[in-house]
Amino acid sequence: MENQSSQYLTRGKDYELKEQLFTLPGKYYTSEDIYKEELDKIFYKRWILVGREEQIPHAGDYFLYNIENESLIVTRDAGNKVNAHFNVCRHRGTRMCTESKGHFAGKSIQCPYHAWTYNLKGELAGAPLMNELKQFDKKNYSLHSAKVQTWEGFIFINMDENPTPFEKEFAPLIGKWTDRKFPELRIAHTIEYNLKCNWKLILQNYQECYHCPGVHPLLAELTPFRGASHDCMHGGILGGFMNITKEGGSMTMNGEAAGPALPGVAGNEKQRIYYYSIYPNMLLTPHPDFVLYHVITPKGPHNVQLMCNWLFRPEVINDPNYKESIDSAIKFWDLTNQQDWQVCEQMQLGVGSKKFGTGHYSGMEDVLSEIDKETLRSLGHSI
Amino acid sequence: MENQSSQYLTRGKDYELKEQLFTLPGKYYTSEDIYKEELDKIFYKRWILVGREEQIPHAGDYFLYNIENESLIVTRDAGNKVNAHFNVCRHRGTRMCTESKGHFAGKSIQCPYHAWTYNLKGELAGAPLMNELKQFDKKNYSLHSAKVQTWEGFIFINMDENPTPFEKEFAPLIGKWTDRKFPELRIAHTIEYNLKCNWKLILQNYQECYHCPGVHPLLAELTPFRGASHDCMHGGILGGFMNITKEGGSMTMNGEAAGPALPGVAGNEKQRIYYYSIYPNMLLTPHPDFVLYHVITPKGPHNVQLMCNWLFRPEVINDPNYKESIDSAIKFWDLTNQQDWQVCEQMQLGVGSKKFGTGHYSGMEDVLSEIDKETLRSLGHSI
Amino acid sequence: MENQSSQYLTRGKDYELKEQLFTLPGKYYTSEDIYKEELDKIFYKRWILVGREEQIPHAGDYFLYNIENESLIVTRDAGNKVNAHFNVCRHRGTRMCTESKGHFAGKSIQCPYHAWTYNLKGELAGAPLMNELKQFDKKNYSLHSAKVQTWEGFIFINMDENPTPFEKEFAPLIGKWTDRKFPELRIAHTIEYNLKCNWKLILQNYQECYHCPGVHPLLAELTPFRGASHDCMHGGILGGFMNITKEGGSMTMNGEAAGPALPGVAGNEKQRIYYYSIYPNMLLTPHPDFVLYHVITPKGPHNVQLMCNWLFRPEVINDPNYKESIDSAIKFWDLTNQQDWQVCEQMQLGVGSKKFGTGHYSGMEDVLSEIDKETLRSLGHSI
Repeated sequence: MENQSSQYLTRGKDYELKEQLFTLPGKYYTSEDIYKEELDKIFYKRWILVGREEQIPHAGDYFLYNIENESLIVTRDAGNKVNAHFNVCRHRGTRMCTESKGHFAGKSIQCPYHAWTYNLKGELAGAPLMNELKQFDKKNYSLHSAKVQTWEGFIFINMDENPTPFEKEFAPLIGKWTDRKFPELRIAHTIEYNLKCNWKLILQNYQECYHCPGVHPLLAELTPFRGASHDCMHGGILGGFMNITKEGGSMTMNGEAAGPALPGVAGNEKQRIYYYSIYPNMLLTPHPDFVLYHVITPKGPHNVQLMCNWLFRPEVINDPNYKESIDSAIKFWDLTNQQDWQVCEQMQLGVGSKKFGTGHYSGMEDVLSEIDKETLRSLGHSI
Repeated sequence: MENQSSQYLTRGKDYELKEQLFTLPGKYYTSEDIYKEELDKIFYKRWILVGREEQIPHAGDYFLYNIENESLIVTRDAGNKVNAHFNVCRHRGTRMCTESKGHFAGKSIQCPYHAWTYNLKGELAGAPLMNELKQFDKKNYSLHSAKVQTWEGFIFINMDENPTPFEKEFAPLIGKWTDRKFPELRIAHTIEYNLKCNWKLILQNYQECYHCPGVHPLLAELTPFRGASHDCMHGGILGGFMNITKEGGSMTMNGEAAGPALPGVAGNEKQRIYYYSIYPNMLLTPHPDFVLYHVITPKGPHNVQLMCNWLFRPEVINDPNYKESIDSAIKFWDLTNQQDWQVCEQMQLGVGSKKFGTGHYSGMEDVLSEIDKETLRSLGHSI
Repeated sequence: MENQSSQYLTRGKDYELKEQLFTLPGKYYTSEDIYKEELDKIFYKRWILVGREEQIPHAGDYFLYNIENESLIVTRDAGNKVNAHFNVCRHRGTRMCTESKGHFAGKSIQCPYHAWTYNLKGELAGAPLMNELKQFDKKNYSLHSAKVQTWEGFIFINMDENPTPFEKEFAPLIGKWTDRKFPELRIAHTIEYNLKCNWKLILQNYQECYHCPGVHPLLAELTPFRGASHDCMHGGILGGFMNITKEGGSMTMNGEAAGPALPGVAGNEKQRIYYYSIYPNMLLTPHPDFVLYHVITPKGPHNVQLMCNWLFRPEVINDPNYKESIDSAIKFWDLTNQQDWQVCEQMQLGVGSKKFGTGHYSGMEDVLSEIDKETLRSLGHSI
């Protein structure tokens, strides 16, 4: 399963530190106009993570994915296909579903206002009295839908009419962890965080460990802060791995593994924690024994919602012997998250100053410059 | 009193269902710019309902009508005339009155800041020390006023300098219910609702019963949802009547009348409930035995305040025997209101989606298209 | 110490009442655009009061001064110099200090994110690993700073690169009260007020006593409302004095002095209370026995924060015999403040009306027109 080690590059060893890298100007973190542009050109155009297949195991199950003015009904149809319909009745636009998740008992979606009814594929199945209008054809009034792709148990949607193929966008990661059987994993725990900072600061914070000694003393002990190697250093997918010091250890309060290693984890994989940011809204962190992932949802230029999830094998979740160690993994990352969010919020406040200009990246922050480039490329901006 | 029945038209009987009618685009419900245009070209230019004459029975009584940045002092002067003065001192602009209603004991309006004092007609009566300025003439510093018109006990104002004559605007309704002696009615109850939706969605919701079977099962039982006939189908005043199934019944929890029929209600009038929307801010619903009216006040593109009022004859209000049936009428409409507000708020959320485009009206919603036309005409827009 | 009496002019005696003076249009109190212009051209360009030297007596002491997106660390360095550094780390912009006041124990300012460390002069002293970058020179990464000037114990800053010299701006007041030894005074009490009105309405309210009879009956008794004389009637510093009726009295609940006269207060100075507004954010009110000052911080076009402070001699503060009289001075001005804030908030509501236009100043409000001129001059506007 392991990629050839030659692909992973270490700073200062495999390549020289990069000089003269500067941050984006402050307006990219504060401007309402740029934020709206980001919605249109990034969040409404790219593949974005919305959830896990396990959240809708049966036909008729659904959950809502909401981002700004858009609400999508992510549901599984009778043919086991996952669909994502805009939560907008084609009659007069009413948002039909309000509960964050549920089950369409009648295998149909009904608008509460005038009872127009759609099947799980989004086709208009019933519209009271509309048959009296000669020029109305139900076929033209299916729900609008987004493209859907599943990968490793994750559900991604794309609201663009003609998106970049998923396989092309995710090429660097496809097949990378097949042996680990991620689709079999289950969500052991979820924590929602609501922060006062721009969504891009979360990606940036995730992609550097320059802050670890000061902000995360415990994490820096488990994985030495300069021990990162990268195989993805350009484009939307960025990341690599860090070395775990303790043999067979993992990221928990005492550094011990939270459960047995996942299938296929062998050799030096046992000492690696992977960190990948998948632009624009996913952080994927495979440990030897579990997987952590974050879903990033922007809430205006100054606010962001983070959903942090812990994936474990179902037999580990169900085994009471692992309760304590799972809790330790949850506690470790909740602590680390909160340490990060605090400095991200402080950074948001500072970059709003008219004196900010741009910042100067350290040698350990070269990947952050790649995130900035992806943003500028997506927006069609040059600075 | 009854208009000739030939004036009332029933869909599918007196005229064919109208095909291919589409809603306004979503921006008409969400744009700040369009909202500001609506204030200037609609609410600050049209006759708007502000209250009832009974609220200011004596000279010096007043109440405030507030809409966005404007506050008006609606007051009765010594000559029994109702005036509406802008609540803006001519000295330096201070808002003078703050209580929502009250009585000017000294028959004058005094600014709390520098004590400039106006009589009830709005003329500047006293301005400390201003007589020392040779070029200052009190005559030029009367309060700004809006035009005022009373009709059937209702008080309307118009903030435009040269408004369309009230008689022309209200021609379809003037004289329609004279026998019923609406000016003698009194407010039995008022409920304030604050909703998260655009003000126009309230008018639209009021003008169709396509939603009644699903949203209002009780109402649909009392007045069959397809039993509407219209005499006003164009312009600012739209409406007609629906048939009450139960003989001598009305809109209450058990469908029985809440009180004796109003004067002049005879023949098939006893089985009719009228529904008129008076653009832009009044819903007038005469029942055989009482009158319901709503005052609509926009609070930004996404919010609206509704004041719902129940008018009964004073002797009915004062008769303890009617307490229970009046409460039943209040309960019925409060229930119906809340059912409506819920779907209106859901519609507001949906029309904000970039996928909304426009909706397609059913055959039962032809009148809603007329509301849209009145909006476009008022704004000088074409779509 | 006293200025020659010939400098002080009394309305109607030394000069004729000024006719035909009109207020600014309403948009100057409500427009977001004008507000942003005011920040750039006034608050970020002029000398503004941020605090007193006594707040940071020792090297390493600091307090924060926050205005809109800007936060400044006001601190005293080892050479006893007061500095004001932008609270923005030069690495990636993080706001470093969060507590409103404190002490830099290590005589250095450290960013909590990546531990970049600055000395009290703002020079970058330590930046982890940055020495590995050949092209990075710490000398270029000092904190941005504002200009600082102290005067009579007050600390002023100026965020402009090339400000008007303090001595020129403050010429009318420099040396005026040297004998009174203001630097020795200490803050006996502070009250924070948060108001719903534009910051300029506070300056205007302060500069006229036309409202005193109605709004401040007690104040008007202690200092007759027409008894003002002015020596500063143009430019950023405006003001003069009012006469205290009671011999040896002051502004307290019973009109008695709150403490012994300050040094150098003799002759008719004993019967004078001075009122100076120092554009844009200071109100300075020297009494014979104490000094009152307000710091004005705008919070958007419709909101303002006021910090009101009472300065007394330290031996008076420490003498229990004066506790009651000091409290009486505090109570008097808190009462007076609250009376003012109420009418200021009412004025804010009124000037937002489309009917406001402009107001007409009375003969007692000529100085207010000078505040307006200072605003227009600063913004480069003509009306």
